[in-house]
Amino acid sequence: MINKFKEYEFKISAYELALTTMNFDAMTVAPKLSSEYRNERMGYLSGEYYSIFTDKEFVEIIENLKNDNSLDFITKRKIELYDQFLNKTKNISKEEYTSFEKLKMDSYDAWEKARKENDYKIYEPFLLKLIETSKKLTLKREPNKDVYNVLLSDYEDGMDKEKYDKFFNLIKEEIVPLIKKITDSKQIKNQLEGYKFPLNIQKEYVNDILSYLRYTDDFGVCATSIHPFSSRLSKNDARITTRYNENDVLDSIFSVIHEVGHAMFEHQVADEIANGIIHNSISMGTHESQSRLFENCLGRSKAFWEYNYPILQNKFDFLKNISLDEFVNTINISKPSLIRVDADELTYPLHILIRYELEKGIFDGSVDIKNLSNEWNKRVKEYLGIDVPSDLKGILQDIHWSDASFGYFPTYALGSAYAAQIFNKMKQEIDVDCLLRNNKYDEINNWLKEKIHKNAALYSPKEIILKATGEEFNPRYYVDYLKNKFSSLYNI
Amino acid sequence: MINKFKEYEFKISAYELALTTMNFDAMTVAPKLSSEYRNERMGYLSGEYYSIFTDKEFVEIIENLKNDNSLDFITKRKIELYDQFLNKTKNISKEEYTSFEKLKMDSYDAWEKARKENDYKIYEPFLLKLIETSKKLTLKREPNKDVYNVLLSDYEDGMDKEKYDKFFNLIKEEIVPLIKKITDSKQIKNQLEGYKFPLNIQKEYVNDILSYLRYTDDFGVCATSIHPFSSRLSKNDARITTRYNENDVLDSIFSVIHEVGHAMFEHQVADEIANGIIHNSISMGTHESQSRLFENCLGRSKAFWEYNYPILQNKFDFLKNISLDEFVNTINISKPSLIRVDADELTYPLHILIRYELEKGIFDGSVDIKNLSNEWNKRVKEYLGIDVPSDLKGILQDIHWSDASFGYFPTYALGSAYAAQIFNKMKQEIDVDCLLRNNKYDEINNWLKEKIHKNAALYSPKEIILKATGEEFNPRYYVDYLKNKFSSLYNI
Repeated sequence: MINKFKEYEFKISAYELALTTMNFDAMTVAPKLSSEYRNERMGYLSGEYYSIFTDKEFVEIIENLKNDNSLDFITKRKIELYDQFLNKTKNISKEEYTSFEKLKMDSYDAWEKARKENDYKIYEPFLLKLIETSKKLTLKREPNKDVYNVLLSDYEDGMDKEKYDKFFNLIKEEIVPLIKKITDSKQIKNQLEGYKFPLNIQKEYVNDILSYLRYTDDFGVCATSIHPFSSRLSKNDARITTRYNENDVLDSIFSVIHEVGHAMFEHQVADEIANGIIHNSISMGTHESQSRLFENCLGRSKAFWEYNYPILQNKFDFLKNISLDEFVNTINISKPSLIRVDADELTYPLHILIRYELEKGIFDGSVDIKNLSNEWNKRVKEYLGIDVPSDLKGILQDIHWSDASFGYFPTYALGSAYAAQIFNKMKQEIDVDCLLRNNKYDEINNWLKEKIHKNAALYSPKEIILKATGEEFNPRYYVDYLKNKFSSLYNI
Repeated sequence: MINKFKEYEFKISAYELALTTMNFDAMTVAPKLSSEYRNERMGYLSGEYYSIFTDKEFVEIIENLKNDNSLDFITKRKIELYDQFLNKTKNISKEEYTSFEKLKMDSYDAWEKARKENDYKIYEPFLLKLIETSKKLTLKREPNKDVYNVLLSDYEDGMDKEKYDKFFNLIKEEIVPLIKKITDSKQIKNQLEGYKFPLNIQKEYVNDILSYLRYTDDFGVCATSIHPFSSRLSKNDARITTRYNENDVLDSIFSVIHEVGHAMFEHQVADEIANGIIHNSISMGTHESQSRLFENCLGRSKAFWEYNYPILQNKFDFLKNISLDEFVNTINISKPSLIRVDADELTYPLHILIRYELEKGIFDGSVDIKNLSNEWNKRVKEYLGIDVPSDLKGILQDIHWSDASFGYFPTYALGSAYAAQIFNKMKQEIDVDCLLRNNKYDEINNWLKEKIHKNAALYSPKEIILKATGEEFNPRYYVDYLKNKFSSLYNI
């Protein structure tokens, strides 16, 4: 029985590798006209993949092993996760699954096209179809549950609207007034404005940062894509992408630091659970906690740049007129803005709040989906105080909905909150600043490996936070971290 | 029946796309430690692929359709090619096929490692195993035929040792004395020696050449790999790779022109036969005729550089001291050398002759395979008059044997010979020099599309040459082309 189970695990992993490779390829290098041919075939292969893990024999194996008390701890967890996973496909036929996969691929193409032509109308029918299909398929598998609650717990086991409402209310109470205060106070000057950063030199510098983070071509690769992302093909093939903008060197740098946070998690999973369902099931919140920790808590700290700024200055001579402190202040400027991925650390959770409210409203009917673009813009005005000049800077900015990832966004804010709690613990146990200053990021990676990475999803998100920090998730760490950091930065 | 056949065609194409994508990825961007995990899974997926086209139902469909006289011309050819293809798998079990695929992947890794460490011994056991397995599997499917003849006709339908012997004898008779004469005559100075060509500028220039050839990111992409190659994922996804060497700008340029010759063939196949077995079955000889035609007949002509040289001069200022004629002479210098892919147009067929003789000897037992590296070096001395200083410049230089592609090499020389005959016809029908000079490569592509590309393998290689040039293959065109070009270049 166990051998048969392992056979299935292997088969599943082969299709996953093929599909992930094809997807990475599509997002990074594939020619423009190649998508239709590829999408049809990826649709078919997704169907084959689906057939394997919904195979009657496999479902029976899982059913049987669920009640087998002789299993070791790891196998027990695998069976539990497969069981959860199979519940997500319950009552969904292969045809429904395949055509949903195909719809997602076509929607991605429509999203790209809409962005290119700055025309939401190209994307809208796909988005509406995605919403409708998500609703339908979710109700098929969980007819008695609230659709959005099901989706929320798909992305973060244990979460629901009630818990997220509580979390986002705290953000609103504590962070919105802080942002207001900062907006009214003396602004920090952006010292980098107006400079040009040639792309080939940016690419060289990205390699320096990758070395500093100990992200090497033994197990990683950094490609270019429209929207930065990370993708694990296997434990020793944990990839990232970034993008380059001549006017903004920070875009490529912080995208890279963020994505390496994800990739290092994927790479540092223990061998005995690597590449299978336990690896695949890393919760979105814990995953994002690592990228946020890298990008913000560590990557925007002064100690990080004490080592890295002189190297950057050597690449771009004009930076020699800007001091380390001025640079560190610049990379931490907080100002309400339109694009989520460009948002500063402090206003970021409000972007997530907007998406959370929209998704909640989409699925409980309180938001008019025929009017989604306006609904979006209205909330940006309300929470961030700014007008959306075009859908490119509004509803067209994110890839996620084109992939039907409804319920995913809230984990971004949750991840930031986990990060603050983990960072607090890390500073108690190792001298983070000293390590950053002295090019010893490997020790930070090691700490994270021991505390979090090696376990992947061997435990639930709740247990993982408890194991890593010694206490349950507590959003106060996040709120306090933001308040301390930004009050001090803005002298308020 | 036809619908069932189309279903199989589609499934086969899905696995082909997955495997080709994974292979391209492995050769261009995949991290170093990723291969073991990937190879195991690619082995499995190759097995799935194998299962589909050796499925009893599919074999029966082919058997039945073979005798169906109502089929249209294209479908008839498809069935014929599938029948040929299935004959290649006859008597070979899925396990044998899969483990051979796995052996090839492992051998590729061993070849790479051996190159890195310049140690043939790392690669040797894999090579011997590949030879042994190729022999065994070939005999299993064709017990009554000469093994190497079977392999030769696998790569070029209609060819065998007798025909190749005749072809290579003509080369020996006519070309060896010519090379001798040139070696004894006044040498042409390499005007480019000693200069450095920064890689980022080379990459920019490669983009200029790609535009000139009308190879765009609509249907193509140019990546970097150890050994340049082309790979079709679909008609609208015809990729190439190149490599960059700071000391040699010609390496990247001519690799690109060569590979675009292949890619343009793949891209210009008619829609109604694109992406299926007729597309897959383009003969190696006709394929190579296009890359050689691009690289040598067109790419090394003065007219080509009348347009492109000033652009190159603008990228590398020091070239302004080198005249067009000096440059064109430099890119056509003929001198015996060690590396096949760096060989000039004239000495190139002797590199192939060496490999042909070795392969012939490997399979008829007249070459001592325990001593292959020495056998290689001995022939290099004999035909090219030079010593091989290390296996890196000898037996370790080619990727082909690591993929068990025995019988493939001879098609390279054959392709060059086809190219000369096609080039002769092209010049009769269109004003090639005028088009090259005036940035009208699209018209050259169009001529090739009509004469050759659109048909892929709708006809046999023999018929394709006949259709394109109005006569059967005649190696005299090649020999005369080389004699005229190099006698004039060297004033002999």
